[in-house]
Amino acid sequence: MERISVIFEKVRKERPLVHHITNWVTIYDCANVLRTVGALPVMAHAREEVSEMTHISSALVFNIGTLSTGLVESMKIAGKTANKEGKPIVLDAVGAGATSFRNEKVLELIRELKIDVIKGNRSEIASISGLDVLTRGVESTEVAQDMKEIAWKLAREREATVIVTGKEDIVADRNSVYLCQNGHPMMGNIVGTGCMAASLAGAFAAVDEDYAMACLSSLAVFGIAGEIAAGKSFGPGSFKQNLYDALYNLSGNDIKELVKTEKAA
Amino acid sequence: MERISVIFEKVRKERPLVHHITNWVTIYDCANVLRTVGALPVMAHAREEVSEMTHISSALVFNIGTLSTGLVESMKIAGKTANKEGKPIVLDAVGAGATSFRNEKVLELIRELKIDVIKGNRSEIASISGLDVLTRGVESTEVAQDMKEIAWKLAREREATVIVTGKEDIVADRNSVYLCQNGHPMMGNIVGTGCMAASLAGAFAAVDEDYAMACLSSLAVFGIAGEIAAGKSFGPGSFKQNLYDALYNLSGNDIKELVKTEKAA
Amino acid sequence: MERISVIFEKVRKERPLVHHITNWVTIYDCANVLRTVGALPVMAHAREEVSEMTHISSALVFNIGTLSTGLVESMKIAGKTANKEGKPIVLDAVGAGATSFRNEKVLELIRELKIDVIKGNRSEIASISGLDVLTRGVESTEVAQDMKEIAWKLAREREATVIVTGKEDIVADRNSVYLCQNGHPMMGNIVGTGCMAASLAGAFAAVDEDYAMACLSSLAVFGIAGEIAAGKSFGPGSFKQNLYDALYNLSGNDIKELVKTEKAA
Repeated sequence: MERISVIFEKVRKERPLVHHITNWVTIYDCANVLRTVGALPVMAHAREEVSEMTHISSALVFNIGTLSTGLVESMKIAGKTANKEGKPIVLDAVGAGATSFRNEKVLELIRELKIDVIKGNRSEIASISGLDVLTRGVESTEVAQDMKEIAWKLAREREATVIVTGKEDIVADRNSVYLCQNGHPMMGNIVGTGCMAASLAGAFAAVDEDYAMACLSSLAVFGIAGEIAAGKSFGPGSFKQNLYDALYNLSGNDIKELVKTEKAA
Repeated sequence: MERISVIFEKVRKERPLVHHITNWVTIYDCANVLRTVGALPVMAHAREEVSEMTHISSALVFNIGTLSTGLVESMKIAGKTANKEGKPIVLDAVGAGATSFRNEKVLELIRELKIDVIKGNRSEIASISGLDVLTRGVESTEVAQDMKEIAWKLAREREATVIVTGKEDIVADRNSVYLCQNGHPMMGNIVGTGCMAASLAGAFAAVDEDYAMACLSSLAVFGIAGEIAAGKSFGPGSFKQNLYDALYNLSGNDIKELVKTEKAA
Repeated sequence: MERISVIFEKVRKERPLVHHITNWVTIYDCANVLRTVGALPVMAHAREEVSEMTHISSALVFNIGTLSTGLVESMKIAGKTANKEGKPIVLDAVGAGATSFRNEKVLELIRELKIDVIKGNRSEIASISGLDVLTRGVESTEVAQDMKEIAWKLAREREATVIVTGKEDIVADRNSVYLCQNGHPMMGNIVGTGCMAASLAGAFAAVDEDYAMACLSSLAVFGIAGEIAAGKSFGPGSFKQNLYDALYNLSGNDIKELVKTEKAA
């Protein structure tokens, strides 16, 4: 898909500023992955400044990995500004389904704000969809139902783009369902690739109004970088370094040769 | 010791979920080191959810590196659940002996909860034992007394397993004192190896009820990985990457050939 | 300049303890970069202990990257202790000029404490100087005026050493203005080099009372390490690892051969 390279080049050229209210575990990698593709991250969570920070940014990324009541309050303040100004909000629903507190807070955010992109692994998205699943900490558990159907249904109900990460990534919006088979199992051996994917989705959505295509592009680009990096690595330590190098050096040709996406519906 | 490999393989196979309430400096590496050995980390500190998160986990790790009153309150809530459910708690007493606030909070945790594993460097453990020492920030200072005796005494008084890290690591419980000479000075040249060791101790204790043997095993495994990594490194940057690679690839044979542990009492 | 090597060797030999109250994005790298040059970092922000922690430290570093009202309160408490005990305070004014909250808090800190070293990029320093500029998140924007003049004026007004980072770094105090051309564009492709530079400035100021010369030395040393690392790197991932290795292995000879500093006024 030519389109993927075009959106990626727009990110590199326009260098969108992406405001994050995120978790304390992967906050560095969320910022660093954006810098790697030329985008500009800013992390700010004080309620006194989040609205202004969103105002000067082009997208907003929420990650509830280490959420607290205070952080969620700041998300709501920033989110209202983003909604008013028509800037995309990505919500990475880390750990939804693990505790009732996470479930409540995710639903609060989805109810009180217009969330443009809802991202999670299989059990997180199933949990948000109201299915009775238990996320094991922040790890996905098996979901019996067809995730493509679940994602599409959630996308329609919430008028959002829905990303379900896994061996095969799913991107659904009101009209379509896309699949992405790019990626490498080694990505699951380091902490943070999921969070980084959400940050990339934010940067890509900042430069293209077709959020589903922007999200699909970010997943393909990140997955391809992961494949290239894995081929040069001896373990998760070298893999992580190589992932940044690969993403930085990724060319339109690499994407053309390696991309594995399809329209499923 | 055959036993060390057996426990390590159990971690890789059972993939225990380990709940952390930890510091903001090394929170990523604490999570990542567990993923590297196949265990599943979850970091969550909101008082509203810590009890539920501990409930679905197999061990609980506290690290007071950047403690606050709020974090310690969350530790108490989670700790009560762990105690009730018989899940091991590891306390990494980072900086004990540096300020009176840390000293108070460590003693509060030890008094109000049953802490199963107390870990620190020489001056941290000496401080917890009531000796008059000053920890220099989070750095160990010299302690005149025999640390083996101090550790054993503390283990008996607190009915806990005590880990003292240093050039030679000490593990003591009510009955025994073990020593581990594995490790490499380069581990002291990067921030976080001490915290990572505590996280590993939590994962190992999650799969074996003999906490002293589990802790000894985790120290040996981590130290051996450090030795292998140091042999391939040009400085602390490459060392850290190689440490993750080495730990990921560590075999039973590596352990058999390189392990340096002994029973001292 | 012979002087730079001398100060650097003092850091390695005296191993100053540097207390940080900093941001959650680069907190690990701020600590790790100090360990790499032999200094000892301690990160502690609880208001109950910051004064004691500053008391046992040799310098204090503030970074407002992810500031909150609570963190700034802790900075004020620690800062008063540092001022009373004559220990240098470095303020990294991350994002000054991006939101009114940051602007207010920076000015509060400068007004209520004696800040010895004020560090920022071009638009951050311009903003603190009262010029009408907008920092884009934490990214510098163009400033029309001569930054050397702005820095020198601010240094005189605030009786501080002022660091302006950029392609060419500026260090100004009451009497002099220095320039440093060391560094490499790849340093801007990873998150955290600016924050690490502030931490190094703190460690260098801890061992030499001529803060301007200490700051200049830290910038030169870090920039030279960046140049060496860039020559061995394939992208930002390998660069970051090589940066730590290069800084760890940096010799007086490297400095002598590569240093590019000058006195501009």
